[in-house]
Amino acid sequence: MLTGVQVVFLGGDARQLEIIQKLSELDSTVTLVGFDQLQNPFHGVQRQSLTPELLQQADALVLPAVGTDDKGRIHAIFTSDELMLTEEHMAALSSHCVLFTGMAKPYLSKLCDKHRITLVELFDRDDVAIYNSIPTAEGAVMMAIQHTDITLHGSECLVLGMGRTGFTLARTLFGLGANVRIGVRRNEHFARATEMGFKPFYVTDLAQYVTNIDLLFNTIPTMIVTAQVIAQMPNRAVLIDLASFPGGIDFRFAEKRGIKAMLAPGLPGIVAPKTAGRILAQSISQLLLEFTRNRGNGQ
Amino acid sequence: MLTGVQVVFLGGDARQLEIIQKLSELDSTVTLVGFDQLQNPFHGVQRQSLTPELLQQADALVLPAVGTDDKGRIHAIFTSDELMLTEEHMAALSSHCVLFTGMAKPYLSKLCDKHRITLVELFDRDDVAIYNSIPTAEGAVMMAIQHTDITLHGSECLVLGMGRTGFTLARTLFGLGANVRIGVRRNEHFARATEMGFKPFYVTDLAQYVTNIDLLFNTIPTMIVTAQVIAQMPNRAVLIDLASFPGGIDFRFAEKRGIKAMLAPGLPGIVAPKTAGRILAQSISQLLLEFTRNRGNGQ
Repeated sequence: MLTGVQVVFLGGDARQLEIIQKLSELDSTVTLVGFDQLQNPFHGVQRQSLTPELLQQADALVLPAVGTDDKGRIHAIFTSDELMLTEEHMAALSSHCVLFTGMAKPYLSKLCDKHRITLVELFDRDDVAIYNSIPTAEGAVMMAIQHTDITLHGSECLVLGMGRTGFTLARTLFGLGANVRIGVRRNEHFARATEMGFKPFYVTDLAQYVTNIDLLFNTIPTMIVTAQVIAQMPNRAVLIDLASFPGGIDFRFAEKRGIKAMLAPGLPGIVAPKTAGRILAQSISQLLLEFTRNRGNGQ
Repeated sequence: MLTGVQVVFLGGDARQLEIIQKLSELDSTVTLVGFDQLQNPFHGVQRQSLTPELLQQADALVLPAVGTDDKGRIHAIFTSDELMLTEEHMAALSSHCVLFTGMAKPYLSKLCDKHRITLVELFDRDDVAIYNSIPTAEGAVMMAIQHTDITLHGSECLVLGMGRTGFTLARTLFGLGANVRIGVRRNEHFARATEMGFKPFYVTDLAQYVTNIDLLFNTIPTMIVTAQVIAQMPNRAVLIDLASFPGGIDFRFAEKRGIKAMLAPGLPGIVAPKTAGRILAQSISQLLLEFTRNRGNGQ
């Protein structure tokens, strides 16, 4: 249980609701900032405005998926007020306070460094990334069905990268009856892909594997689907980039060639906000329990 | 090959293009009616208007997925002219002419009966229905992802009916990591579902299996998801009816209870018109080859 642990939520979207729910169930003391338009308020949860006094009490601060923008602005869909995280707020935090977010822009990382606040970037964690790969794969499947006039079953699919997302996506497409090829860089990925029936190839040879594709899904966050590669593709190909912005596809050249290409980051929050929220809730509550236990042991 | 076989197409949508392509490749003589706005006309294919003289020559007539409406009107997206199939047209057909459509309304069946024209309803054929179940299942998956805030992976799914569509859909959902229960009526379906890991139950007990569902997919074309059944469901449940109109769900009561329910017939033509067209093309060409061979043998 998290009895007596003070958690302050600053802004966010539907995903936060699952985290609030979970931490309340674990008996922590929850305060919400930036939730004044929430239709179904939680029982036993306070709503306040953002002040240094409030933050002084906090054992944990929960920010949205993208913590702040480059100027400190916090995305908050349940309020029309602007929420800003400033130097003054960070200075008010106690030294043991932990700050949770999906990923931090340099603005937030620098503030945490300066004020020696523990920053947990949840999307960087392997377990969270693997759980998040499930809604990402489903979102990619949804987009692929929407943007082609054929079935995924029997289609020629190329997945680039066999990391946490590529692995799940290849398995998902394979389960739907697609012919899946996977582009890898590492020998152990080549071996695992072979074992799983995915027909792997090395991404250095990418250009020769795209001549007959229906769909390409990229998960590698560097420019890999270059103009030279796109030049080899059939016109019907549809390219879906799941790597974080700016992705790994030469979108300008794809457009010039009339090939449909789209960047689709952040799918979990879009196609399955409830599941995405539960994933974060599970991870945050586990980490908070650990931090609390360690502090109780005199650390 | 279908050399010398005269095929007349009357109206239709993108699916017809795959059939035209296929029959042209097999060297039949193709004439199109209702395709004047087609942007990329086929090589060696004529376009004409609908006259009894044209139909006299036809060995086969290809109508759209739904042959005609109740008054003889033919759905045709590539023309702004109205196409009507009349008594006069049917009288002009030669006795060996075969009429292909997806499904026939009584208007068309009666005309065929009266003029002793062989009518092939492709959607009635087992092979076509099984192939069509693939785009149907993908369309259902797409809708399920769009209309829920959770992942299909880990969700509680109920599929009603283990016919051609129910079988494919249950397998597809299972492959995506959903917990699948399937409602069946026949003992052999219960046995097969058990073998496949779907946790079957008899639809007579439906009400007791819906208390914790996230999604229900119905493929049974009779009123089965009644008000009494819907009354047992959680509010979050999403109901997708794949059975032909009017489906098997009490939509009025679902709306009253605030449960999302939608009728989704005809998914193949919507989510994968190219694949759906190829399925019809394959079946029509195979049947035409058989008919031609039989006629050649003196039948």
